[in-house]
Amino acid sequence: MHFKLEGKDEQSSARAGTIKTGHGSIETPIFMPVGTVGTVKGVHQRELSEDINPDIILGNTYHLYLRPQTQILIKAGGLHKFMNWDRNILTDSGGYQVYSLSANRKIKEEGVKFKSHIDGSYHVFTPENVMEIQRAIGADIIMAFDECTPYPCDYNYAKRSMHMTHRWLDRCLSHLEKTPLKYDYEQAFFPIVQGSTYKDLREQSAEYIANAGAVGNAIGGLSVGEPAEEMYEMTAVVTNILPEDKPRYLMGVGTPINILENIALGIDMFDCVMPTRNGRNGMLFTAHGTINIKNKKWEDDFSAIDEMNITWVDTAYSKAYLRHLFTVNEMLGRQIATIHNLGFYMWLVREARKHILDGDFRSWKDKMVKQMDKRL
Amino acid sequence: MHFKLEGKDEQSSARAGTIKTGHGSIETPIFMPVGTVGTVKGVHQRELSEDINPDIILGNTYHLYLRPQTQILIKAGGLHKFMNWDRNILTDSGGYQVYSLSANRKIKEEGVKFKSHIDGSYHVFTPENVMEIQRAIGADIIMAFDECTPYPCDYNYAKRSMHMTHRWLDRCLSHLEKTPLKYDYEQAFFPIVQGSTYKDLREQSAEYIANAGAVGNAIGGLSVGEPAEEMYEMTAVVTNILPEDKPRYLMGVGTPINILENIALGIDMFDCVMPTRNGRNGMLFTAHGTINIKNKKWEDDFSAIDEMNITWVDTAYSKAYLRHLFTVNEMLGRQIATIHNLGFYMWLVREARKHILDGDFRSWKDKMVKQMDKRL
Ligand SMILES: [Zn+2]
Ligand SMILES: [Zn+2]
Repeated sequence: MHFKLEGKDEQSSARAGTIKTGHGSIETPIFMPVGTVGTVKGVHQRELSEDINPDIILGNTYHLYLRPQTQILIKAGGLHKFMNWDRNILTDSGGYQVYSLSANRKIKEEGVKFKSHIDGSYHVFTPENVMEIQRAIGADIIMAFDECTPYPCDYNYAKRSMHMTHRWLDRCLSHLEKTPLKYDYEQAFFPIVQGSTYKDLREQSAEYIANAGAVGNAIGGLSVGEPAEEMYEMTAVVTNILPEDKPRYLMGVGTPINILENIALGIDMFDCVMPTRNGRNGMLFTAHGTINIKNKKWEDDFSAIDEMNITWVDTAYSKAYLRHLFTVNEMLGRQIATIHNLGFYMWLVREARKHILDGDFRSWKDKMVKQMDKRL
Repeated sequence: MHFKLEGKDEQSSARAGTIKTGHGSIETPIFMPVGTVGTVKGVHQRELSEDINPDIILGNTYHLYLRPQTQILIKAGGLHKFMNWDRNILTDSGGYQVYSLSANRKIKEEGVKFKSHIDGSYHVFTPENVMEIQRAIGADIIMAFDECTPYPCDYNYAKRSMHMTHRWLDRCLSHLEKTPLKYDYEQAFFPIVQGSTYKDLREQSAEYIANAGAVGNAIGGLSVGEPAEEMYEMTAVVTNILPEDKPRYLMGVGTPINILENIALGIDMFDCVMPTRNGRNGMLFTAHGTINIKNKKWEDDFSAIDEMNITWVDTAYSKAYLRHLFTVNEMLGRQIATIHNLGFYMWLVREARKHILDGDFRSWKDKMVKQMDKRL
């Protein structure tokens, strides 16, 4: 993996860059649509590449490990071939999903024992086997196995957990060295900063992670329920420490406003289920605010979904028609809203990049943040 | 509406023709994908027109009447505009759906009182108001309000019902004369032959319907559970009587084999939920038989869904991937199977047309019927 910084905003910490991997270029800042189990829900791969057009998508190790299972992915020649997606893929480490199982998992120094949400069978994730699973899935960027602490989190728990995440990082790194690549392209490994919402812990963790000398770095444990201001504070603390010449990935963030604010703090990569999940629930993100398309007020509004026409669905269908589809619970409604939202998220990060390179990011960002903070 | 017969098979009653309406040409034999409530489930209008490419789709009056309701469709300028579909639409009369409500409807000479499946509210369909509703929806082809008898059906009930359907036809025709068009294109009206599985009733009904002098005619009350041979027998009885120079529509039929056999008996138009509904359940129709894609045998079969590549999904995705999507209950699986099946149905009727025009329909049909009668 190679990362080139191509521009820096003078009035914020925003940056524009390009990541190069075996599956092509990723222009940053980037938003990665979430393709949980080998599919971005409701979106054909053709629509994803031609209409939404992200350079990279995300897959979830936990879900892929359970189904279709790694042996099927290996037989297929990796996830890219299995799902027919030849651009970049990043996989998380399964950590976040496993912790979400709360009652059904047990965390120890060795690793995490958990109960499958599908058939109740028991499994163990360790730093070692998660590296092997991610080798088998074959993403271009793979993540360290970490513990993602909840919010709020007791200081002592956060501290102990952070140190365990650091020890797990060392185990990931040494096991990765011994685990050969399964396919004919490289896999970049990103370690993850933890430390909950404690400034001193975030600093310690950022330093530990920076010292690992990885090609890219991530920030985990944010966007887990804390107020946005706390998230921004932690991001700022960490990006001040992480090396400037490596891409920075803020995991699981967030709303369009969260994304712009974190870009301003020096983040390059994002992923979030919001555009897809909220879309399936009838919530549309636009440059002028959010729309709850289920609202009766749209019943006879035959105007285009979004006059900006970022993706073709925006003007191919009217608000009244989309509202009708949600009212009658038709899957086409969920398909349309998902394409719209992902198209909008991609537009947002691409515009951010343009404005960073043009030198007017800060004023554009401030305007957009105000503009998007509305319900239409 | 104008219908031109362009070719007749010499070894069967199969015909090829072209219907012309205000929304373009329909090449027959044709299969009409079912767009129940203003959407062909899981299929974008763009995919419908560019990939599946039918000249006409079907909408259900019962569903559209309940939601979005006719006043919304009128405000939108009709169903074509509401759903953004500028090719042909045919609407049924709501009769079939209303009878399916069984316990929740009461049939009288005046019409049918029924309870909405959505909110339990009471409604009445009469020959008169169903004509008005279909004027409001604005389909290019609209259907008579009839009673669709179940299978099996007592002879005396079938006979009484058939005569009521005939009296309802007269009421439809005289009310239609008094009901002006709502939009700037014509609507063709098709009456419906009933008579259950009784040859003498079917003959009587076909004669009554033929005498109505409509621009096209339909056969209802088949494909309701009777053996295929009985269906073919009734179709043959009726197509012998219906005028040759008008299109003939066999409602609610059927499997790919049913379609070919009925084309051989002189049917020009078909609709059925099978390709869409069975597709959503993981059943694929192909030229070489049916596939239950949920079957474990496809788990590591990375070959294309269908080497024929009728629609792009056939080779863009593998059987193993599609099976995975059904296993994890992802909507993309239902989307892919629906496009595949509709693409296959369209291919089938288009091939039938070619072979009719080429003069070798009968031998092609016999070969296909044998070939498709398999489980892969
Ligand atoms: Zn999120
Ligand atoms: Zn059917």
